[in-house]
Amino acid sequence: MSFFRSRWVEQPPQASEVEPTALPRGYRAAGVAAGIKPVGLDVGVLVSDEPATASAARFCHSALLGAPVVASREARTDALRAIVASSGNANVADGGRGLATARAGQQAAADALGLQADDVGIAATGVIGRELPRDRLTEGVAQAAAALGDDADSFTRSIMTTDRGPKRVCLDVDLPSGRVLVSAQAKGAGMIQPHFATMFCFVQTDAAMAHETVELLTGVCVKRSFDRISVDGQLSTSDTVFVMANGASGVRVEPESADELAFGEALDALMRQLAFEIVADGEGAQRVGRIVVRGAPELVEPVARAVAGSPLVKTQLHGADPNFGRILQSTGQALAGTGAPFLVDLEIEGRQVVSGGQVVPLDDGEWRALEEAVKRDQVEYVLSLPGDEGETEVFFSDLSHEYVTINSEYTT
Amino acid sequence: MSFFRSRWVEQPPQASEVEPTALPRGYRAAGVAAGIKPVGLDVGVLVSDEPATASAARFCHSALLGAPVVASREARTDALRAIVASSGNANVADGGRGLATARAGQQAAADALGLQADDVGIAATGVIGRELPRDRLTEGVAQAAAALGDDADSFTRSIMTTDRGPKRVCLDVDLPSGRVLVSAQAKGAGMIQPHFATMFCFVQTDAAMAHETVELLTGVCVKRSFDRISVDGQLSTSDTVFVMANGASGVRVEPESADELAFGEALDALMRQLAFEIVADGEGAQRVGRIVVRGAPELVEPVARAVAGSPLVKTQLHGADPNFGRILQSTGQALAGTGAPFLVDLEIEGRQVVSGGQVVPLDDGEWRALEEAVKRDQVEYVLSLPGDEGETEVFFSDLSHEYVTINSEYTT
Repeated sequence: MSFFRSRWVEQPPQASEVEPTALPRGYRAAGVAAGIKPVGLDVGVLVSDEPATASAARFCHSALLGAPVVASREARTDALRAIVASSGNANVADGGRGLATARAGQQAAADALGLQADDVGIAATGVIGRELPRDRLTEGVAQAAAALGDDADSFTRSIMTTDRGPKRVCLDVDLPSGRVLVSAQAKGAGMIQPHFATMFCFVQTDAAMAHETVELLTGVCVKRSFDRISVDGQLSTSDTVFVMANGASGVRVEPESADELAFGEALDALMRQLAFEIVADGEGAQRVGRIVVRGAPELVEPVARAVAGSPLVKTQLHGADPNFGRILQSTGQALAGTGAPFLVDLEIEGRQVVSGGQVVPLDDGEWRALEEAVKRDQVEYVLSLPGDEGETEVFFSDLSHEYVTINSEYTT
Repeated sequence: MSFFRSRWVEQPPQASEVEPTALPRGYRAAGVAAGIKPVGLDVGVLVSDEPATASAARFCHSALLGAPVVASREARTDALRAIVASSGNANVADGGRGLATARAGQQAAADALGLQADDVGIAATGVIGRELPRDRLTEGVAQAAAALGDDADSFTRSIMTTDRGPKRVCLDVDLPSGRVLVSAQAKGAGMIQPHFATMFCFVQTDAAMAHETVELLTGVCVKRSFDRISVDGQLSTSDTVFVMANGASGVRVEPESADELAFGEALDALMRQLAFEIVADGEGAQRVGRIVVRGAPELVEPVARAVAGSPLVKTQLHGADPNFGRILQSTGQALAGTGAPFLVDLEIEGRQVVSGGQVVPLDDGEWRALEEAVKRDQVEYVLSLPGDEGETEVFFSDLSHEYVTINSEYTT
């Protein structure tokens, strides 16, 4: 199957898929089993061999931040040379000890790679509120640094937690000035919400660009991708995006050029599809919904979030139930106190079912067609509120028995 | 088992339980099967035979209100004589037709009971966005009015939807000025949240009191009960509380008297226990959590709601998992952007597990004791935030497989 399996993300014509674990020129990566998890790969290192690498970073906005996020924010996020990522323990709420452990992880990578500690971004995912064994992290980093290769497979697997499979891609992008590669590795399945989520996304390209260009493209693309998804409405402590551009291709992407536009389109599609993958791989998820909300700019975001976050809407998506009363109910909840009249229109899979806040009568045939339409893997709802000029979307997963099983039996 | 089975609600010494389906003097009730549901009782009528009945009402605050709520708000909510309640169809989002149906239900009761239509409060619960068959409602009202008796059993059953059993009580309250009875019937199991929820609570007493007293006591007690619970964070379109005082006992409750205090205590305990029952009977619920949050007044409410509403906390309660990282995570999410430092203390069942935002080390014995403590039916979490003078609580249910089954297979 193509990487671009979402009906809502188009593959840009200038981007073609290559081997998904491939890395662009000048990058190496590895993942090892260091004993942080009971079993499996759990520490990864990725490095750019080009000294002039430009980068950008984004982190979640929780009041409770993991120590790796704190340590990474203090690093040179505009010129990162390496990433340390680990899974099994998020290193959160462990005070000064946790922060010292994160810094020790950066230092271990710097020592092994001939870099400074602040050249290294660090990220961790897993259980909150437990001590991350420092020795296992630093020894894992040393082992991974000794095992670096030009394939991202083991690195990608080292960042998985409840993910059903690795999420990675490598695109060959045909820019006006030449061909570049863009690879990415992501993880995330639960605690997925508002300002991108318990998710990592690491992107590497061998295009050459200024930090300002990486920063701009990262900001725009994250807002349109990881910022528009929800599995369970829960903001993580540890969300991290690192984007690196090392210039090894010799193809330069100048600001406001046709190259920037073409590269940006590819990066946007790549991040949107990975964001979709995180939702599709949401803990226990079997279906993906897309809620589009149009109307007054100040209303669209809270309504879209309310619908996407409602356990009643999510169980309905799970059960492939065409009943849409719960979408109206959650919209009513979000609009409470705004003074907006409940004059909403609702379309499900292109069929209008509510007009001006009132149910549109459907005959038996229309109802059966609606029942069939909501059985698809990807279901689209379009809600129009009073007002105009605002529009937003949120991708969300269904709520299944498996979500409950995972989260009542697995300690995160 | 005593009605007062919650460890967090004390039975006031002046209140003793009598037969739970009993009604105070001067009230009659009945419920019938009118065909709104495929099977079972679905239309109920309750009447006070005393012309001088005082009453108070509370409704939910959604921007999408059921037609019965709209019709009830236009009735004489300070002097209601009768209640019509139905289940199976909430009569929401059906425009002018739905409102006319609600009014026809009031008129049918008025006709059968020799009252005016605006003496009648009306409430409906069930599926949203479908036509409520008007004839079935009005014929059901006529049948129920013809079957009125001095027992609330069939009335209570006629308002059930996904409730596992009827929720009702009758208390004999020994006031300084004499004995009065207070009975109540409630329903609710899903769409339960913020400003009391898809819940009904109808309270009847034969105490005599002015409308202002009923209004005051209802307002205070609802805020401390139905406003403090969450099953799934979903605000309903149809929440309704009606409290009636008909004076048939001859015992008068004057404002700011010892009678008012004693009656208020009993009403408070009654409503808090019924609120607890709604949570304990939350769709699929097996355990009840209580989160108490202390700290700056503007912080306690959003944090308590975030913890109580988190599917990760709720699945953890379900799995009797002592891991508290998810409570910290949801607190961090709620505090994001407030500028409050993450200096939180957390106690679970009286054991401190977090101090100043940092995990308190537990030895194996302490950890095992914590594991045992969270296996109880009722689990208490106390969270202290920066600041003082604020305190709130929310009762919440766990999230189970059965919730998913109910909500993916049942059309609400």
